[in-house]
Amino acid sequence: MDAMGGDHAPRAVLEGAALAIADGGVDPANLLLVGRQEALQPLQKELGLGAVELLHADEVVSMDESAAAAVRSKRSSSIALGMKAVAEGSGSAFVSAGNTGAVVAAATLLLGRTAGVHRPGIAVPMPTRSGPCVVIDVGANIYCKPEHLLQYAIMASEYCRAVFDKPTPMVGLLNIGSEEGKGGDFVSDTHALLQDAGLSYRGFIEGQDILSGAVDVVVCEGFVGNVILKVAEGMAQYVGQQVHEAFALHPPRREVKLALNDAFARLDYAEYGGAPLLGVSAPVMIGHGRSQPHAIMNMIRAAGSVVEYGLTAHIADRIAAYTERALP
Amino acid sequence: MDAMGGDHAPRAVLEGAALAIADGGVDPANLLLVGRQEALQPLQKELGLGAVELLHADEVVSMDESAAAAVRSKRSSSIALGMKAVAEGSGSAFVSAGNTGAVVAAATLLLGRTAGVHRPGIAVPMPTRSGPCVVIDVGANIYCKPEHLLQYAIMASEYCRAVFDKPTPMVGLLNIGSEEGKGGDFVSDTHALLQDAGLSYRGFIEGQDILSGAVDVVVCEGFVGNVILKVAEGMAQYVGQQVHEAFALHPPRREVKLALNDAFARLDYAEYGGAPLLGVSAPVMIGHGRSQPHAIMNMIRAAGSVVEYGLTAHIADRIAAYTERALP
Repeated sequence: MDAMGGDHAPRAVLEGAALAIADGGVDPANLLLVGRQEALQPLQKELGLGAVELLHADEVVSMDESAAAAVRSKRSSSIALGMKAVAEGSGSAFVSAGNTGAVVAAATLLLGRTAGVHRPGIAVPMPTRSGPCVVIDVGANIYCKPEHLLQYAIMASEYCRAVFDKPTPMVGLLNIGSEEGKGGDFVSDTHALLQDAGLSYRGFIEGQDILSGAVDVVVCEGFVGNVILKVAEGMAQYVGQQVHEAFALHPPRREVKLALNDAFARLDYAEYGGAPLLGVSAPVMIGHGRSQPHAIMNMIRAAGSVVEYGLTAHIADRIAAYTERALP
Repeated sequence: MDAMGGDHAPRAVLEGAALAIADGGVDPANLLLVGRQEALQPLQKELGLGAVELLHADEVVSMDESAAAAVRSKRSSSIALGMKAVAEGSGSAFVSAGNTGAVVAAATLLLGRTAGVHRPGIAVPMPTRSGPCVVIDVGANIYCKPEHLLQYAIMASEYCRAVFDKPTPMVGLLNIGSEEGKGGDFVSDTHALLQDAGLSYRGFIEGQDILSGAVDVVVCEGFVGNVILKVAEGMAQYVGQQVHEAFALHPPRREVKLALNDAFARLDYAEYGGAPLLGVSAPVMIGHGRSQPHAIMNMIRAAGSVVEYGLTAHIADRIAAYTERALP
């Protein structure tokens, strides 16, 4: 665990670890906190985390630092040392709510890609009416080739099986219309690949349908995926503010307020335990910078499910099987 | 006016025209309804629109028809004949809540582009905390060159002056981070052009900031712009449903309900009178397919503001001035 990553680190990270142990059935002996000893030890004591191992890391990558620079110059950051621990087998998964770019760069460099995978992708489970919809990629790979999106579909389908208990996840390709011929060559070429990939492919999906839960996986280029995520977040915040202002003028009854809080909680990213970076040779979970302890706990638990399911090996198998099948 | 365009046409369109006359200060002699005579005449009578001129159009382009096919094969559709009327000077602006692709194709073909404009773009005013933020392009031009985005910034700034009374609109470039170097070559090249264009350019803007009202104009490629629009719409609908369900269980007091209705109304696209297609030689306003009479009225009024301001001529001047200045 990157104990230094996120806007509320290290406290929120250690509180999340404490929650995972207390409520989440996680064995403290299975956690490894990576970060500045002098910052972590007092918190460890305060939160009763004495049984959790600590790995000292001198440096911290800040949230808005350039990823490339951070990986080059900060070789003993909590991200680099934590990732190295996983690469060397002292850990089975890495979890961080820190600088996303730096986590992606460190994972690619230190863990390496899964055999056959062109580009790792970040998969974000978004809340919908009927459970999470996984959007991939949301920023690891800004501009993609059709083959990248095909591999994202394969990997995210495996992820849905591992964590959301969906045996046949349905896949959609993001487009700006539902008819064939819309969206240009990139979308058409990707569509053709997906139709022939042995997935439960449902064709094109438009922006408004992501949240309706029409499919379990939506594939798109990293630029647009990142924008989707942030617009949805901005919209949820904006609506939340409007409701808050309306309530300041006309305070509702307690039950009404609680019911609405529940409704908004269903929009919360934190429920789904962060976003996996798929396509690297060990599980890596990336949390939102704003992660609070509850989100950290869910991220630790999701990492546990992924390890237990053997996601990395499953992805490697599926990619190999597809590559073999696609050979002329 | 395309009297046949939109999910609720022709009734909603004619009711919108009636509203514009009754509440919007629009002179019935300045409206021209284009569509099937047999469908329009009874409604015209029913709604007291006898003073509005009617132009018969045999054919109707349906909402999900291919735009290219519609323009080729339906030469006497309400869209084609209405656009032709504007091209020939019998109208000063065209307004439609119909098939967006068909309106864009017909406008480009029959009106032609403004001199110097590479690609027309659709500009959608989105609601924010501090008034509308215009996002351009939202689907007329799927993949863009940096020059296209530069021209979008110039045109949408003029539109803000014309309709939203903002003398110095602030422009942002959509990106997936706020640091230089993010977003790849396309974004960097566009950034360089915008910095040197004599606009009030504020640099990169991320998805979540669009709705915060940080800038007045956001430029982006048509694919991502279209997705933004639809995700925001999907999110607003989703939150609305959640709130509705919460209220079904715990009905709020009347004042609370009204306050929330107000809050949600502020998210309503209909307030801003549709989306102009910028860069063609006469004003064209495109409404949401779901447009109700109130939205149609606002679209007619926005078309009026655009004509009165002389937006098309202003855009032509600005594009010419920039082109001249940019010559070596």
